[in-house]
Amino acid sequence: MISIKSIYAANKRIKEYIRETPLVSSPFLDRIAGRRVLIKAECLQHTGSFKFRGAWSAISALEIEKQKKGVITYSSGNHAQGIAAVAEFFSCPALVIMPSDAPKLKIENTKSYGAEVILYSRSKESREDIGISIAKNRGLTLIKPYDDEKVIAGQGTLGLELASQLSKYSVQDADVLVCCGGGGLTAGVALALAEAAPNLRVRPCEPEHFDDTSRSLQSGKREVNLGFQKSICDAILTPTPGELTFPILKKFAGQGLVVSDPEVLITMAQVFQRLKLIVEPGGAVALASALFRKDEIKGDTVVVVLTGGNTDTKTFRRALRSLESL
Amino acid sequence: MISIKSIYAANKRIKEYIRETPLVSSPFLDRIAGRRVLIKAECLQHTGSFKFRGAWSAISALEIEKQKKGVITYSSGNHAQGIAAVAEFFSCPALVIMPSDAPKLKIENTKSYGAEVILYSRSKESREDIGISIAKNRGLTLIKPYDDEKVIAGQGTLGLELASQLSKYSVQDADVLVCCGGGGLTAGVALALAEAAPNLRVRPCEPEHFDDTSRSLQSGKREVNLGFQKSICDAILTPTPGELTFPILKKFAGQGLVVSDPEVLITMAQVFQRLKLIVEPGGAVALASALFRKDEIKGDTVVVVLTGGNTDTKTFRRALRSLESL
Repeated sequence: MISIKSIYAANKRIKEYIRETPLVSSPFLDRIAGRRVLIKAECLQHTGSFKFRGAWSAISALEIEKQKKGVITYSSGNHAQGIAAVAEFFSCPALVIMPSDAPKLKIENTKSYGAEVILYSRSKESREDIGISIAKNRGLTLIKPYDDEKVIAGQGTLGLELASQLSKYSVQDADVLVCCGGGGLTAGVALALAEAAPNLRVRPCEPEHFDDTSRSLQSGKREVNLGFQKSICDAILTPTPGELTFPILKKFAGQGLVVSDPEVLITMAQVFQRLKLIVEPGGAVALASALFRKDEIKGDTVVVVLTGGNTDTKTFRRALRSLESL
Repeated sequence: MISIKSIYAANKRIKEYIRETPLVSSPFLDRIAGRRVLIKAECLQHTGSFKFRGAWSAISALEIEKQKKGVITYSSGNHAQGIAAVAEFFSCPALVIMPSDAPKLKIENTKSYGAEVILYSRSKESREDIGISIAKNRGLTLIKPYDDEKVIAGQGTLGLELASQLSKYSVQDADVLVCCGGGGLTAGVALALAEAAPNLRVRPCEPEHFDDTSRSLQSGKREVNLGFQKSICDAILTPTPGELTFPILKKFAGQGLVVSDPEVLITMAQVFQRLKLIVEPGGAVALASALFRKDEIKGDTVVVVLTGGNTDTKTFRRALRSLESL
């Protein structure tokens, strides 16, 4: 298991290059949630998501020779953009394998940072197999989106930042709701908080039908999602918790929370109206849990991470319509 | 003319209660603007606009007796929300006169902070007359939206914050683009920068047909807009520069910049896509000037203030469509 030291080390490497994203709130959201909601607006991070942290942590730790040869990764979009933007900064070639049904904007942005993009079919091919085979042939370093120690350590820096920001509030014994796909961010933050703010307890939040982490935490072993289900939360549709991330969650995380797509859409619209922020579906799952699962949460205050904002206009207009029909 | 001392005094009163809103940027916007664009995301301020600063400055400076009796103001919405929210904090009754065609959300929010709202017809009645008459009858203190020294001083605190944030960048001789209605914010920031960062020059930005400040700066006297024109920039549709604000602008501000409604809509959509923020039409005018009037701006870097984010879903969906049709 990675240690808090790796997170402190990652923090040293990236601190100067990331944004310290603000903690925001709204009395209107507090009212809906039935308690104070403190919201970490990580959608304002460079490239529009927390993935920039892990990407910087991983690429900045590579030897110069490996940076020169280049990196490869697979991602539905946010890790892709993070890797592409950071690689461009380090003049490191980047190849990204993306699902052909990923949001157009995420594909275009990844390309515009100078990365080479290869599309694959989610239902017919394995991105892991493609990644490993190309990495070998071209001599590239594979940086997995969550099952990578440096990536987890990078995401964990958000936990350190949060602990420092929350020290100004008298928050005791609160749940920290984190949107959870493969678990890189959730595990990194759980590790960081266990050390830096042990009164805060991470709760992984997932979309309906993709609640593998919630079920795994209940059963104690890595459960798998059914293959044919759909969700609008593209950023966090992973089949099963990571090999490296799950043991960390098992040790440090509280019970999972699960929300539906309609609840996510209303939450996106509330964020528009009350916080003046854009959050993407997969990035709104934690706040949706605070708003719609209040009986499963304890304490006067709940902390929530808005993890990303890379949504397209079509999805966002759908979210706005959900508010109009309330 | 108010002095920088009033701004420092206001800053002392409000510092603990406002958000220090972040400075953000995007390589994609830099590319469109042809230079680096540093963007002050003041739409993330409490109540969704800079008006919270001026409201706090004005109400916090009142004697307790006057706070108890209550305040009155007129506003198309952002100053209304600022006054209502701050008045609620000080347990000070608030009455707000709003145009009947103001965005619904702004009216609802003002009411939900506990303020009494009276609607008037923009075309048939004078809000100033209504305000003065009710203030007199009920013994309320009138806090005008921009022609008020304490309000201007409060808005000026944004200038102090900006100067401190920009000191980390090596910005020399840059234009600072500010959305301008009656000129409270523009004058406050101009005053603050003249003292705290004299290399930065404020440029008022206005919507087409409401370019009274631009024309007034050219002619040297307060010009008036034609009455029958329309614009989507509801927050900054004032007929003429303020009595108190114009002499400050005349002394400290550079030439005005003017943009069209379609340019404002595209800018709102760019802010959605590149910054993950919501900006309202009147709050996007300065960034629109950076993106669409680059030949009228000097220097490698331009600074821009996004002044507010209180837009409704219908207007925002219109902005998103403008991006889809590009």
